[in-house]
Amino acid sequence: MSSELLRVGVIGAGRIGKVHAGTLSSMVPGVRVAAVADAVPEAARQLADACGAEKAVRDHREILEDRTIGAVVICTSTDTHAALIEESADAGKHIFCEKPIALDLDKIDAALAAVERNRVVFMVGFNRRYDAGNAGLRETVRSGAIGVPEMCLISSRDPMPPPAGYVRLSGGMFLDMTIHDFDLSRFLVGDEPEEVFARANCLVDPAIGEQGDIDTAMVTITFKKGALCHIDNSRRAVYGYDQRAEVFGSKGMASTTNIHENNVIVARAEGYSRPPIQNFFMQRYIAAFQEEDRVFAECVREGKEPPAGGKDGRAAALMCYAANKSLAERRPVRIEEVDNHSSKSPF
Amino acid sequence: MSSELLRVGVIGAGRIGKVHAGTLSSMVPGVRVAAVADAVPEAARQLADACGAEKAVRDHREILEDRTIGAVVICTSTDTHAALIEESADAGKHIFCEKPIALDLDKIDAALAAVERNRVVFMVGFNRRYDAGNAGLRETVRSGAIGVPEMCLISSRDPMPPPAGYVRLSGGMFLDMTIHDFDLSRFLVGDEPEEVFARANCLVDPAIGEQGDIDTAMVTITFKKGALCHIDNSRRAVYGYDQRAEVFGSKGMASTTNIHENNVIVARAEGYSRPPIQNFFMQRYIAAFQEEDRVFAECVREGKEPPAGGKDGRAAALMCYAANKSLAERRPVRIEEVDNHSSKSPF
Amino acid sequence: MSSELLRVGVIGAGRIGKVHAGTLSSMVPGVRVAAVADAVPEAARQLADACGAEKAVRDHREILEDRTIGAVVICTSTDTHAALIEESADAGKHIFCEKPIALDLDKIDAALAAVERNRVVFMVGFNRRYDAGNAGLRETVRSGAIGVPEMCLISSRDPMPPPAGYVRLSGGMFLDMTIHDFDLSRFLVGDEPEEVFARANCLVDPAIGEQGDIDTAMVTITFKKGALCHIDNSRRAVYGYDQRAEVFGSKGMASTTNIHENNVIVARAEGYSRPPIQNFFMQRYIAAFQEEDRVFAECVREGKEPPAGGKDGRAAALMCYAANKSLAERRPVRIEEVDNHSSKSPF
Amino acid sequence: MSSELLRVGVIGAGRIGKVHAGTLSSMVPGVRVAAVADAVPEAARQLADACGAEKAVRDHREILEDRTIGAVVICTSTDTHAALIEESADAGKHIFCEKPIALDLDKIDAALAAVERNRVVFMVGFNRRYDAGNAGLRETVRSGAIGVPEMCLISSRDPMPPPAGYVRLSGGMFLDMTIHDFDLSRFLVGDEPEEVFARANCLVDPAIGEQGDIDTAMVTITFKKGALCHIDNSRRAVYGYDQRAEVFGSKGMASTTNIHENNVIVARAEGYSRPPIQNFFMQRYIAAFQEEDRVFAECVREGKEPPAGGKDGRAAALMCYAANKSLAERRPVRIEEVDNHSSKSPF
Repeated sequence: MSSELLRVGVIGAGRIGKVHAGTLSSMVPGVRVAAVADAVPEAARQLADACGAEKAVRDHREILEDRTIGAVVICTSTDTHAALIEESADAGKHIFCEKPIALDLDKIDAALAAVERNRVVFMVGFNRRYDAGNAGLRETVRSGAIGVPEMCLISSRDPMPPPAGYVRLSGGMFLDMTIHDFDLSRFLVGDEPEEVFARANCLVDPAIGEQGDIDTAMVTITFKKGALCHIDNSRRAVYGYDQRAEVFGSKGMASTTNIHENNVIVARAEGYSRPPIQNFFMQRYIAAFQEEDRVFAECVREGKEPPAGGKDGRAAALMCYAANKSLAERRPVRIEEVDNHSSKSPF
Repeated sequence: MSSELLRVGVIGAGRIGKVHAGTLSSMVPGVRVAAVADAVPEAARQLADACGAEKAVRDHREILEDRTIGAVVICTSTDTHAALIEESADAGKHIFCEKPIALDLDKIDAALAAVERNRVVFMVGFNRRYDAGNAGLRETVRSGAIGVPEMCLISSRDPMPPPAGYVRLSGGMFLDMTIHDFDLSRFLVGDEPEEVFARANCLVDPAIGEQGDIDTAMVTITFKKGALCHIDNSRRAVYGYDQRAEVFGSKGMASTTNIHENNVIVARAEGYSRPPIQNFFMQRYIAAFQEEDRVFAECVREGKEPPAGGKDGRAAALMCYAANKSLAERRPVRIEEVDNHSSKSPF
Repeated sequence: MSSELLRVGVIGAGRIGKVHAGTLSSMVPGVRVAAVADAVPEAARQLADACGAEKAVRDHREILEDRTIGAVVICTSTDTHAALIEESADAGKHIFCEKPIALDLDKIDAALAAVERNRVVFMVGFNRRYDAGNAGLRETVRSGAIGVPEMCLISSRDPMPPPAGYVRLSGGMFLDMTIHDFDLSRFLVGDEPEEVFARANCLVDPAIGEQGDIDTAMVTITFKKGALCHIDNSRRAVYGYDQRAEVFGSKGMASTTNIHENNVIVARAEGYSRPPIQNFFMQRYIAAFQEEDRVFAECVREGKEPPAGGKDGRAAALMCYAANKSLAERRPVRIEEVDNHSSKSPF
Repeated sequence: MSSELLRVGVIGAGRIGKVHAGTLSSMVPGVRVAAVADAVPEAARQLADACGAEKAVRDHREILEDRTIGAVVICTSTDTHAALIEESADAGKHIFCEKPIALDLDKIDAALAAVERNRVVFMVGFNRRYDAGNAGLRETVRSGAIGVPEMCLISSRDPMPPPAGYVRLSGGMFLDMTIHDFDLSRFLVGDEPEEVFARANCLVDPAIGEQGDIDTAMVTITFKKGALCHIDNSRRAVYGYDQRAEVFGSKGMASTTNIHENNVIVARAEGYSRPPIQNFFMQRYIAAFQEEDRVFAECVREGKEPPAGGKDGRAAALMCYAANKSLAERRPVRIEEVDNHSSKSPF
């Protein structure tokens, strides 16, 4: 079906739904946003208009029943992801779903089983893999230019904390925020994690602590072949959305860093200054979202395995569970301890 | 007419016509590309389809006669610019025209007179003013942060020389390439040039020399208030499209620099390395073109004076003439020497 | 005694002894290296000649008995430090001693008790505190410019592994190498550590593993006020002696980085390149050693408390013990667990 | 005489005399400052004491008559250089002389003739050639890594203007300050200059203008093989002593830049900041002075041609004369126009 137009249904017209609808409709050749679904009809309507979609519906099943629609993009709240994946897969739609697949491992496995039995393309929204810096870093590692990876460092800090209400529903910082870094660590190191140790505090906003969550964390991951990985997170970096990564190996080191708002440098008697780094995830990762959506369309069209599929979504979730357990029990936790289904899971 | 849709006709469906048609149709809210004209009907048709324009025409007069079209974007070859500006202005269209307005001063003045008498908005395509780095640099200077400008340095180097055939029609390197830097110097220094000295050679491609043109140049400009400006150009920077600027003043210095292909840095035993800088003007200035087109639509809609108008197009052309004369006569040349109409020109 | 010449005896004429003798004799005004002691008489003689010392002795007691000598600089092997400190203190000499004070806590406490009872100045050789970058970073933190410290990251990687024979005597990587980073973490964060978690492997050189040591490590430290600190070490960074630090706080972030061999950047078709970073600790920290020796002389002359004294040497050693215990028991270890004398120690 | 101690006499105990005396006595192995001469006996005495010289004399002839002294370092005011060179050469001493050799070409030629007839080593104080950045840049060009040099850019800006009184005696900005950049351009491009065009203003300090001098300048140099070179100078860069150079060639570009006071970078809500660049020439070029003095001693000891000798001092002076003439006559000036002796000069 490579030269045909791919008609896509977007489920969920919130912030991230708008990102994908906008990108898919105007930046990805060969794709058309055919329908938008949202429980709030007005939201669906507005987004449909903005991206030129024919249909705005309240019930996502109208999309699943539309035979002209080949793929869905799931942008609803986390608690609905797993069920929507199952339904969509059973309706034969190819699926892009925002991370995380679900908060709960059983739900993840059920969703992935549906994907498997229907043999649809399934891609999970780890957008950072498509960032030019991270992709270039991965390519550098894969090329052997820095030898065997021995250490990996990821600094990932949000510009400002989310509202406490959001925290409650997010599954906690590890599942909401660190999950991206966990995925990135696997992507960059090119190996599977064996053990996770997490140390965290609530230093930024007491309201987050009152929800039982943390806002400042450091995680150490041991990979199977021996590489060590450090992740640090903060919910509040006043100087912008700080996103850096580094891989150290037997033959060298490679890193990627932030992008400043512009390239102006000012030198005055008191010193040199530059503008802050890009502050908003949409600004920082706009090109990554475009590439992600382009890759999704390509995978659907060519029946290819997506760079970040069900296995990756599951693996990152396990790392989150291990980090949570490590925090609770104040000890390093092996991935197999949190993989209840590890003996039988096909993933 | 601020909330109405602005319907635009694009005249010329070549490389730069595609840039503006694409940007105006998909990246500038409130604008619609209504028609595309090109002497090659097929080219007009293809571009019209690509940007969703209703009409593809061979004769630009069909656009000028279309009362629903409020503005034209002139992207044809340089020799046709002046006549198209006159016709468009007389048809009451607002005008965006790629640089240069014309190779010849009389033609420039005739075109600008038509703009004047029809009171249409006229904007010339000095895209670099809308680059975040250059705009930020201008803003820094204007804010007084570096005091009174005393020196300005502009390095502007193409990644590879144009074909010799192009050189013949381009009016020479100063009118084809340096004109951007001349405009940038006025934009950054915030003063008018008084004298130009140019020194140039043909070092890159003998075929360029055979056309009577140069490919490597240094220009010194003296501004009225005393600031000195250096421009250097090469037609071939093997490491990419090198675009840097710096303003030095009584209280400091500000500069802007290139953007690398990605942010990856690799450290190995032999040293540190980064990818080349962006190589193609479309990659480097894509955001600048978007901003330029957005600003044009805004100026038309709000009847504002464009940041780069007829006066700026004329001033940059005079600097080119002075540079050419300086090169021929091996001496510094005052701007007034090349402004034949300086006594009577209203510009 | 501020305007008098300070006569110093250097004990140990090996690599680090040469550094201090050279620096003290030629770069620190008001100091004279009066004598050099080394068990190998030839080594003592050569160094004494090179730095203009009057005496070269085999037995350090000749230095301790010399009433014209006000201070000693202890540069012998680690196992002799504690005894030399005791003897020197009891002889009334002010003392500079290379790190670590001793491998064993009892010996450290005995040495520090001698310092205490003789009221001599005691400074331990944490040279990195005197590096312009680290000192500037500390000053930035102390000034409040980045608010309350919440995270600290230290990357410290040697250019190449030591011979396996050295490893055996060094007390292991934490006591030999990480001890500098442990001290730096306290210096930068400005708080006391509470808990240490270490994860390490032998990835660089199997011969190191055969000695029971490690060569690649990551450590997470929790400080009393809540700040988290990450340290990573490798015994082999092929691109140079990699020494970076970063402190993240409620109002910003400050970092310091490496120094390249020179400032040349080369741009070619394949990209941009720079020379490696400084490769040898003497090159990288030469100015830090000079400042360290200058500060020592100043503290002796003015009777001031050194920036890094006995308390700091002891605290860093405790962090090493905790890291070793954490590694052995695969769990985070509290500092108080390794401070046997914590109830009675006056330090 | 390679293993013998080289005994040196320093003539002139002012600022730059102190630099060389200090460096030669403590940083260059195998050299001893044997005597210091200064018209002010106290100054000679103080410097002699500081660098351990045996003799402090008022009359430099006492140095020239001392047969144990092999070389002199001339650090007096410019107007005395040429005569001291002649006398020293006739006394058989090897000579290091600060730039410029003389303000006047006849005097330069007379001095160089004395050097020639006595076959002594003569080195002129172009210290920037020994800076690691400039030397690395030269090495990069010479290696062919950037192909044939086509353009060279040198920015050289003092942190603050000299007192007007100094200006009067200095020979003007080109002979006092730009002479370093002129030498650097020859050093970096590896070719001889053909033509110079200078444009300058007095923008910094009116008192400098009242002395008939300038404080802000741009110079364009055309080299014999076609390369173009730009130099810009200001007497006042509030952000430090700004010293940058760049060479652009057929296969790439290489540049060197400034050194900041330390490597700390601070990120706050308003942006990123770094400390100013090194502000004082002694701080910036301390290592270059050490290397320069080391090279001088080596050339004397091994009878080698110095990297910057009489020919280089003369060539840079000619460029100064051409720049002065260009400024006066407002036109480009060929080097041969200012080389009165060009037909007969052996240099």
